[in-house]
Amino acid sequence: MLNPADASFAKRLATLLPEDTVTAAEPRYLEEPRRRAMTAEALVARPRSTTEAVAIVRACVEARVGILPWGGGTGLVLGQVMPEGPEPLILSLERMNALRGIWPEEGLMIAEAGMTLAEVQAAAEGAGRLFPLSLASEGTARIGGNLATNAGGTAVLRYGNARELCLGVEAVLPDGSVLNGLKRLRKDNTGYDLKDLLIGSEGTLGIITAATLRLFPKPAATGTAMFVVTGPEAALSLLSLIQEATGGNVTSFELIHRQGLLFLDEVVPEQRQPFADRPEWSVLAEIGLPPGLDPEMVLAGAYEAAGDLVTDGIIASSAAQAATLWDLREALPEGNRRIGAIASHDISLPLSEIAAFLRVAGPRVERLGPFRINCFGHLGDGNLHYNVFPPKGGRAVDHIEKAGEIQRAVHNLVHDHGGSISAEHGVGRLKRDDLVRYGDPAKLAAMRAIKVALDPIGIMNPGAVL
Amino acid sequence: MLNPADASFAKRLATLLPEDTVTAAEPRYLEEPRRRAMTAEALVARPRSTTEAVAIVRACVEARVGILPWGGGTGLVLGQVMPEGPEPLILSLERMNALRGIWPEEGLMIAEAGMTLAEVQAAAEGAGRLFPLSLASEGTARIGGNLATNAGGTAVLRYGNARELCLGVEAVLPDGSVLNGLKRLRKDNTGYDLKDLLIGSEGTLGIITAATLRLFPKPAATGTAMFVVTGPEAALSLLSLIQEATGGNVTSFELIHRQGLLFLDEVVPEQRQPFADRPEWSVLAEIGLPPGLDPEMVLAGAYEAAGDLVTDGIIASSAAQAATLWDLREALPEGNRRIGAIASHDISLPLSEIAAFLRVAGPRVERLGPFRINCFGHLGDGNLHYNVFPPKGGRAVDHIEKAGEIQRAVHNLVHDHGGSISAEHGVGRLKRDDLVRYGDPAKLAAMRAIKVALDPIGIMNPGAVL
Repeated sequence: MLNPADASFAKRLATLLPEDTVTAAEPRYLEEPRRRAMTAEALVARPRSTTEAVAIVRACVEARVGILPWGGGTGLVLGQVMPEGPEPLILSLERMNALRGIWPEEGLMIAEAGMTLAEVQAAAEGAGRLFPLSLASEGTARIGGNLATNAGGTAVLRYGNARELCLGVEAVLPDGSVLNGLKRLRKDNTGYDLKDLLIGSEGTLGIITAATLRLFPKPAATGTAMFVVTGPEAALSLLSLIQEATGGNVTSFELIHRQGLLFLDEVVPEQRQPFADRPEWSVLAEIGLPPGLDPEMVLAGAYEAAGDLVTDGIIASSAAQAATLWDLREALPEGNRRIGAIASHDISLPLSEIAAFLRVAGPRVERLGPFRINCFGHLGDGNLHYNVFPPKGGRAVDHIEKAGEIQRAVHNLVHDHGGSISAEHGVGRLKRDDLVRYGDPAKLAAMRAIKVALDPIGIMNPGAVL
Repeated sequence: MLNPADASFAKRLATLLPEDTVTAAEPRYLEEPRRRAMTAEALVARPRSTTEAVAIVRACVEARVGILPWGGGTGLVLGQVMPEGPEPLILSLERMNALRGIWPEEGLMIAEAGMTLAEVQAAAEGAGRLFPLSLASEGTARIGGNLATNAGGTAVLRYGNARELCLGVEAVLPDGSVLNGLKRLRKDNTGYDLKDLLIGSEGTLGIITAATLRLFPKPAATGTAMFVVTGPEAALSLLSLIQEATGGNVTSFELIHRQGLLFLDEVVPEQRQPFADRPEWSVLAEIGLPPGLDPEMVLAGAYEAAGDLVTDGIIASSAAQAATLWDLREALPEGNRRIGAIASHDISLPLSEIAAFLRVAGPRVERLGPFRINCFGHLGDGNLHYNVFPPKGGRAVDHIEKAGEIQRAVHNLVHDHGGSISAEHGVGRLKRDDLVRYGDPAKLAAMRAIKVALDPIGIMNPGAVL
């Protein structure tokens, strides 16, 4: 159906756009972080403006060339690589990285899609405001990609996913028209919510070129603590206590399992850890409070009120101490990477199903082999990264034939417990089959109908999601 | 294209459904609150379950009969009345009013569409939680309608619109299939966001039959105050001050203009008012704080910090006093109703454009006649109800020929200032032409494509929105 982005197409594009807008794609555009798949070969177009992006999309429509939208390349579900099909045109937003405007008193900014998340955060900070989206790859990930994938991260509990942080988008639709949705409005009930349809569609319905983003007042004071808990149920009870004590102002509540700490001992031994005995379960909690309250005292009060649920704890008494605790949390993915997972799962569960799921999932995975499980993540959102690793001294590659079976077992259990097999990473090309297996048939049928209606040729990120 | 819901169709439905599910529609189903239009005649179907709703929709598809989804009938844009076209089937959700489940520790409940908003609030309250959606018609409006229209109200500033309060929906789609989206999850990135597409589509893409709703911890303490301000700009500066002082915990921030207070003096004289001299501009502010803070002191501090911006104020020192202040705010629509508006506008503006808009809008309207303007609403959201009334002693009906001209003048100015002509009420049949006039062409084209893709016969709320 689609044609390759070949030499004659490159020539055609060159006539429409300033020099060096379109080039052969270097390797960095063809790879993905976990090196599980790559795009064989591609052209890359790097427009400087929405007008140029429109010219590119229209040329692709005319030539029936598939477009692979490209932000920072940090996605984890193969949404940014196309191992199959005719050579695509990679459309990178990296040069569209202007801050179009910031209105701190209105609590919003308009950012182009190519700003990195860290640049967006810094722009907000510079205006005395907070843009709360925060995740490990924020130095590289770009806000357009964050929105296209509805990114989550560590502050969803208090501020919501990328979706909740966006008031409107500008996007090039699959027919080359421009959706102008950058109003600076909190409320606008004029017609269907296309903003939220584009957010999380992973580039399959259009290319987000700019967005109106919400900014928040910075909390007057923040507090950070690490608590050793007797188990996931105790962790959830502790969360309730801290939510009550702070009036719902818990920013982050991250679960950590001993396995992740032992991985660090094994492969990142220089990483400092607060507890000499690596605790089986611990949590990292962050709160943000209005003026007049002392976060350390509030956290200490919750610690006390928790009684037997919590067996040990460290409450940061300085920003530097808080940063040390966060360092540990943020080192966990690096530990995982160095050990090498056989299978990774980005799941969410109803909060009251988490403990039951964990009780059955461990034994179920262990039936398949002597594997090590590292379960960590955003407990307050019910979002766990449930990753399975080889036995000590083993290599993932030697167990890779079990990967499918492990994944199926974990996802089946997640489904049985009313959970989601993709909490925050999306579907991409990695979970396309799982979407069909576990998805609601009416939802899938409606998704397909919408895709065909808006992108009848199928040029937008072909093969992703659907 | 569509056929009327005639006697033979009624007979056909009767064979499929329990007795008295389908009857001739009584007048209450045919009217709308402001009596501007009505449905001439209709059948009404009142299913008791999703299964019955599916049977009804399938029968309508087969017979090509239009469906008019019906919640509490409180909508203000004629979304629930069909003055033109073949006789429709009204599908009322009122019998589907079960609370399917409530999980206070997870912060959510599953409610059927026919629960009134007040019943939803009460169920949350009974479980020690808060469902924050709040609006004047909450005793009559049903949650399905609130979601279908993405209702706003007085607590959007802190908690968001109906959209932000909903984690998932169950809906009967236009082909009679059931979208099963009632997961108890905070995060779920498996495919397109159909929940948000249905929310705000005003029944044109499907019928919401149940929803997973977010619940919040109740604030430990709330504070309410009314402040006299020197103008809308001063009001916005005061809002910033209170947001800083509370760490973003302002629940409501409602603007009140003198005209509304004078209307109450004129037609609701029994309404008590706090200020003997009716102030030109005042605001009603409500805050909700975590434990350990005294809302009265925080409000008093903001009052002091505001300096010249605020010339008078009352800080409620009891729940009864707070209720008295809210009574005044809630009496404003009744005063408007008794005076009788020539034209009403539900607009939103960028916060920093509000003062400029008000400076030009008054003179612009006054050029058209000696009208009185009552501007009030949810200032914190940039959402104003800008309503135009006859001169004292006059009747709206005597100026009705000016209504279109007034509306066009106001909406043109709103559009010029980057605002929306429907902030929270929706489009319905009232603002369908305005949607085309002021809407983004690419957005309209995409909306039409989606409507045709999901509802090719056009049976869902025909003539609404598009």
